[in-house]
Amino acid sequence: MQELVKVVVDAMGGDNAPQETVKGAVDAVNTRKDIKVILTGRQELVEGELSKYTYPKDRIEVVNTTEVIEMAEPPVNAIRKKKDSSIVVGMNLVKKGEADAFVSAGSTGAVLVGGQVIVGRIKGVERPPLTPLIPTKDGVALLIDCGANVDARPSHLVQFAKMGSIYMENVVGVKNPRVGIVNIGAEEEKGNALVKETFPLLKECKDINFIGSVEARDIPAGVCDVIVCEAFVGNVILKLYEGVGATLISKVKAGMMQNLRSKIGALLVKPALKATLKSFDASQYGGAPLLGLKGLVVKTHGSSKAVEITNSIIQCVQFKQQNINEKIKEHISVKEEIRED
Amino acid sequence: MQELVKVVVDAMGGDNAPQETVKGAVDAVNTRKDIKVILTGRQELVEGELSKYTYPKDRIEVVNTTEVIEMAEPPVNAIRKKKDSSIVVGMNLVKKGEADAFVSAGSTGAVLVGGQVIVGRIKGVERPPLTPLIPTKDGVALLIDCGANVDARPSHLVQFAKMGSIYMENVVGVKNPRVGIVNIGAEEEKGNALVKETFPLLKECKDINFIGSVEARDIPAGVCDVIVCEAFVGNVILKLYEGVGATLISKVKAGMMQNLRSKIGALLVKPALKATLKSFDASQYGGAPLLGLKGLVVKTHGSSKAVEITNSIIQCVQFKQQNINEKIKEHISVKEEIRED
Repeated sequence: MQELVKVVVDAMGGDNAPQETVKGAVDAVNTRKDIKVILTGRQELVEGELSKYTYPKDRIEVVNTTEVIEMAEPPVNAIRKKKDSSIVVGMNLVKKGEADAFVSAGSTGAVLVGGQVIVGRIKGVERPPLTPLIPTKDGVALLIDCGANVDARPSHLVQFAKMGSIYMENVVGVKNPRVGIVNIGAEEEKGNALVKETFPLLKECKDINFIGSVEARDIPAGVCDVIVCEAFVGNVILKLYEGVGATLISKVKAGMMQNLRSKIGALLVKPALKATLKSFDASQYGGAPLLGLKGLVVKTHGSSKAVEITNSIIQCVQFKQQNINEKIKEHISVKEEIRED
Repeated sequence: MQELVKVVVDAMGGDNAPQETVKGAVDAVNTRKDIKVILTGRQELVEGELSKYTYPKDRIEVVNTTEVIEMAEPPVNAIRKKKDSSIVVGMNLVKKGEADAFVSAGSTGAVLVGGQVIVGRIKGVERPPLTPLIPTKDGVALLIDCGANVDARPSHLVQFAKMGSIYMENVVGVKNPRVGIVNIGAEEEKGNALVKETFPLLKECKDINFIGSVEARDIPAGVCDVIVCEAFVGNVILKLYEGVGATLISKVKAGMMQNLRSKIGALLVKPALKATLKSFDASQYGGAPLLGLKGLVVKTHGSSKAVEITNSIIQCVQFKQQNINEKIKEHISVKEEIRED
């Protein structure tokens, strides 16, 4: 029999917990036979939700936790003090090897801090980036880094490029992924100090397919598969994607409701349009992994519904089966050896 | 009689020069009686274009220039060497007081360098930012800075906030404009080193309406009027706006063409939709001024058509009549005095 991939789900995390987190877990074990889910959270609440569904009982386990880390809590403090929270207990299960992965829709800050402090970095990884997939015209691209550790160094960005390439190739299935660095012009001499220093280092990397600078204008068109940037810029890109998309779609809707003629037209275009716009909706692509940790940690959107939780859980299987962390270890250590020459 | 506002237009700048630059100048003088345009460029080309139109001959003048700065040329070199280019000659007219403003759709780099080197900064202004208006849900906001001078200091951002507020209040007509700093979270303690240092300085400013951090997600919704950031981030925001907008609109169009039903619907919604989407198109808002110079320099999009050139010229009238530079001088010098206390 195939080995089960064990995924801890933070049942208490996110705006729709525990209803949607528990439903997402149930849907995941009902969809795939190779998954076991461990739900961390208040036992009576979680079991109350579970009792609504039919699912293979041996593939969902509940671990009772008494504390919850709130969205607004300072993350470092919360991780240190709330030892019996769904996040801390869940991450400790990954640390101890009792689970392969941890999925949370809770506080981004707490997940990032917990990932580093509890699960810990792979040896040689200087900084674990948060890496969501973002939609492009005909597919997706990996935005690396969108985390909380701003003011990165060139060596961090080089590791991001390597880890991002491994993820896109093995989890998303893009052969020889094109790596670009976010810049304010296409030429090598353009950019801020960080980009100018990083550019030649990326050019030297033999194990990535570096295509040079990428202007923000060309990201949605899909000019590259791995978009390297430091976290402040990555965060701006991720959130502006959401913001421009939401405003533009609301304007399209308002435009269609302007008069009788356009309202009739709207009824006719609606089904086709809905399908197209869905493909440009970031939330369907599962969560954002925190790469470079000793186990897998996945952060999903705070407003995640069951379907995003399910997608994030399934994503962990691919990650585990493709031995992503082994591959990261190989490539990061190769770099360390070159450095010592 | 009202005094004429004299605007130099770089007839050779941009993808559609000189046809659209000349047409834009003609349309401007035909629309408003208080404008005189001086066109810099190859005389025979410019006059050839002018001969196609009817306009008051005494309000368009041609100054012959023999050189053109190409888009790809290194800007510092180009400004230094091409003394008889349409950009250098045009900016010198502003410097000598023979014109009030300079408008170009040519090389952004050359316009930025020329603005600083030829026209020169207002005393006390540390760095002149490039400041386009970007569309929001129900209006526009000023994005300051999108220029080429990256790696800004906190004092630069404070000046941007002041100059941007003056511009929005007096040129765009927004009373007591809300100023926000681009950040990766709403809390004061979030951000990179630059934002953390700048935040308290902005809070102290008495002459601006500082509302705190603004996340990129909320920019398109119009949560603030003056969006303060350093140029690298500003450039990413400006270009991603364009990129996400273009990709999403092309997806909406493709979605509508999917089947017979949606095609019929598309015919019906098209007129209403076109009007709505036009309001989200950055190009209609004229050019981006380079604030804090001794004269006005406006950069318009390289792909500008006549209408954007005309809008940029008309924008200069408001700038001049509202004495923007006098107001900038007052507020920047106020700050210098406080500093000396």
